[in-house]
Amino acid sequence: MKLYTSWFCPFAQRAWIALEEKGVDYSYVEINPYEVDPSLPGGYTKKQLPIEVKKALYPDFVASSPKGLVPSVSDPNGDKVWESLHVVQYVDERFDHPPYFLPRGDPLKRAHVRIWSDFVTERMQKNFYMMLMDQDPGRQGKAKESFFAECRTFAKAMGTDGPYFLGKDISMVDIALFPFWQRFLWVGGYYRGLEMPDDPDFRRLHTWWEACSQRPAFNGTLVCRPRLISSYSQYSRNEGTSDYAKNLQSSLSGTQKKP
Amino acid sequence: MKLYTSWFCPFAQRAWIALEEKGVDYSYVEINPYEVDPSLPGGYTKKQLPIEVKKALYPDFVASSPKGLVPSVSDPNGDKVWESLHVVQYVDERFDHPPYFLPRGDPLKRAHVRIWSDFVTERMQKNFYMMLMDQDPGRQGKAKESFFAECRTFAKAMGTDGPYFLGKDISMVDIALFPFWQRFLWVGGYYRGLEMPDDPDFRRLHTWWEACSQRPAFNGTLVCRPRLISSYSQYSRNEGTSDYAKNLQSSLSGTQKKP
Repeated sequence: MKLYTSWFCPFAQRAWIALEEKGVDYSYVEINPYEVDPSLPGGYTKKQLPIEVKKALYPDFVASSPKGLVPSVSDPNGDKVWESLHVVQYVDERFDHPPYFLPRGDPLKRAHVRIWSDFVTERMQKNFYMMLMDQDPGRQGKAKESFFAECRTFAKAMGTDGPYFLGKDISMVDIALFPFWQRFLWVGGYYRGLEMPDDPDFRRLHTWWEACSQRPAFNGTLVCRPRLISSYSQYSRNEGTSDYAKNLQSSLSGTQKKP
Repeated sequence: MKLYTSWFCPFAQRAWIALEEKGVDYSYVEINPYEVDPSLPGGYTKKQLPIEVKKALYPDFVASSPKGLVPSVSDPNGDKVWESLHVVQYVDERFDHPPYFLPRGDPLKRAHVRIWSDFVTERMQKNFYMMLMDQDPGRQGKAKESFFAECRTFAKAMGTDGPYFLGKDISMVDIALFPFWQRFLWVGGYYRGLEMPDDPDFRRLHTWWEACSQRPAFNGTLVCRPRLISSYSQYSRNEGTSDYAKNLQSSLSGTQKKP
């Protein structure tokens, strides 16, 4: 099995953790989706290459991910799956042995794992990026409060009989959050002086982070700190050019019109 | 089991179809999430009530859907699930008998059902709403072309041995698209003169629509045509006030800055 991934991408990191946790035999294929510019930090522009260029550079990758986005996985037998949480669920079902990312035989718990995995992307991550991209200190402060509030909502949904989201066992929720929590701590701390509050909700999250960090399958995917921080310098100046950044910029300009 | 839904909501309609297809014993609970104004068509403003007001009016509903959005389902045994595709998957797993919305024992097919269900919301629906909300005829025309292109991409992913997305058997993809296709045809036709092209891709989609429309579980959820059309009049003037409308408005204003 091949994993198409980019070292800086938190979504791709989810797929990587899933393959590591299941002990799958795979090869790691690094994709650079950006225009190269050796004068910039990291050597690239963060401008997405057009899909035709990606197709010429990486035909196997684009066959495995029609939009040309990481992560995707493919197999000589013809299987091709893209989108981070769909890859995680596919790996869970195809390699049908523990650890299970969605608990077997419990439809309610499985639904909650899906709901709270989406919550990470749609609520926690979104507020964090708003805080990172907005250039107005007042609005940054508001985004930080919203980010903390979403973290607290998440913490209250966590199980109490163990360190992971569900409690005793890991699940897709842990895989969904881990790459982002790394960025909240390191990138948020560096560019916005973000410090997590010291209260029971955040202590629960701290216990969670410690437990996940000690699992080799999670730990082995951590991006080295200075490299991670440097890769976010454009976001921190609101000069990101990914589709995701552009979508958020239009939300920011929406709020900026009505102060 | 209780289904919390609103008659005009295509997402809630997905949950409704799922319960009907599985023959579940449920009660239909209509939620009006909007501020009431008898002078407007339909009698409401399309302004979302604050969550505290929803909590006071519909405590059981908000317990079953913390963001106060339809659809959600709840059960006296304590099960509560929200978000349309998560409800569909939950119903599929909890009522573990045919028809299956995700084929059993086929991880790749299951992944594709999830991927293409998301495609409906993220690509087809989005382009349709852009066409409906944008007030500039030139940009409407461009949005229509993008919408058609997304429909063709979808059609090419459809199975060839039957009318449904997968071919012979229905799946979550059919449930995901049906409520929106109704709106594409009726609302798009009325406000934007939308006519589906006559080519193999769209003939495949037409065959699909005919087959789904003949299933009682799908057919019984169709919204009556004049009522549906009238409920979209604000969208067609770009005066929608839902969160979804506001997000798209900020994308529109983004594109409007760079003509």
